[in-house]
Amino acid sequence: MRILGIDPGYGRTGYGVVDSIGNRIKSVEYGCIETKPHTPLPDRLVDIYGAVREVIARLQPEAVAVEQIFFSKSVTTAIDVAQARGVVLLAAREAGLPLAEYTPMQVKQSVAGYGKADKKQMQEMVRMFLGLANIPKPDDAADALAVAITHAHNAPFLNRVERMKLK
Amino acid sequence: MRILGIDPGYGRTGYGVVDSIGNRIKSVEYGCIETKPHTPLPDRLVDIYGAVREVIARLQPEAVAVEQIFFSKSVTTAIDVAQARGVVLLAAREAGLPLAEYTPMQVKQSVAGYGKADKKQMQEMVRMFLGLANIPKPDDAADALAVAITHAHNAPFLNRVERMKLK
Ligand SMILES: [Mg+2]
Repeated sequence: MRILGIDPGYGRTGYGVVDSIGNRIKSVEYGCIETKPHTPLPDRLVDIYGAVREVIARLQPEAVAVEQIFFSKSVTTAIDVAQARGVVLLAAREAGLPLAEYTPMQVKQSVAGYGKADKKQMQEMVRMFLGLANIPKPDDAADALAVAITHAHNAPFLNRVERMKLK
Repeated sequence: MRILGIDPGYGRTGYGVVDSIGNRIKSVEYGCIETKPHTPLPDRLVDIYGAVREVIARLQPEAVAVEQIFFSKSVTTAIDVAQARGVVLLAAREAGLPLAEYTPMQVKQSVAGYGKADKKQMQEMVRMFLGLANIPKPDDAADALAVAITHAHNAPFLNRVERMKLK
């Protein structure tokens, strides 16, 4: 199963595509959609939406997993991230793909086996899971790969009702 | 100038289109985009995005004014409203329209002359401004018309730099 993981943001949206075959997970492509600073949010949303559509059209994932918003910072930031996340969900749903959402804690639990793993531990686990020589860069791409890995771990165990809800 | 005002929400997105000619403002159409309860958010986003695009294509506004998110309720609600607002901004920007944003307080100040006007006062002022026999229903449509009226009042006074930023 090919999975697209996304870590949404208005300045940087990380994405990571993995192939999950049996209990092996292989990296297909990862990167970061950056929008220009000092650009009005609506223009950034157009860019993010277009870039996510392009990745889906080109790499043809069978499922999309998106990180939920963690609002430890400011509510204003969370609101802007949420607006970006809205266009990410739109692009995925318009492509007719099943969508899953994971909290940052679920991602940590699934990738590092520990809900409070730090950034460094997470990045190292992502590297190991994907058999990469180096930690994937930038950070947002590594975060997105972690979300994709989380879905690779969880998708086989979602029961039929949950799968239907995701669709 | 034809203005589309929008009061975004994931359950109900109000819209109101007005024509502002000289110092007269005329209602063209208003209504509410409702999404089905118990429907996953991504599906609602597809519906909202499609409906806003349809209104823009059919009524051809020259500018769009969107209410800013007021997070008095829960942060979770604000985040879901923000995701809906993201696809509204996307639809407007993709249509190449200049976009303006107003806080609820700016809308109250502009329509009722008083930043703390209550819902009833606001609805009555919207009715009067548009010369309608009755208060526009539902509430979300009246809210959206208030945003459009706010932009009708403010657009002529935006200086060139602000206009450029809006574009
Ligand atoms: Mg309302």
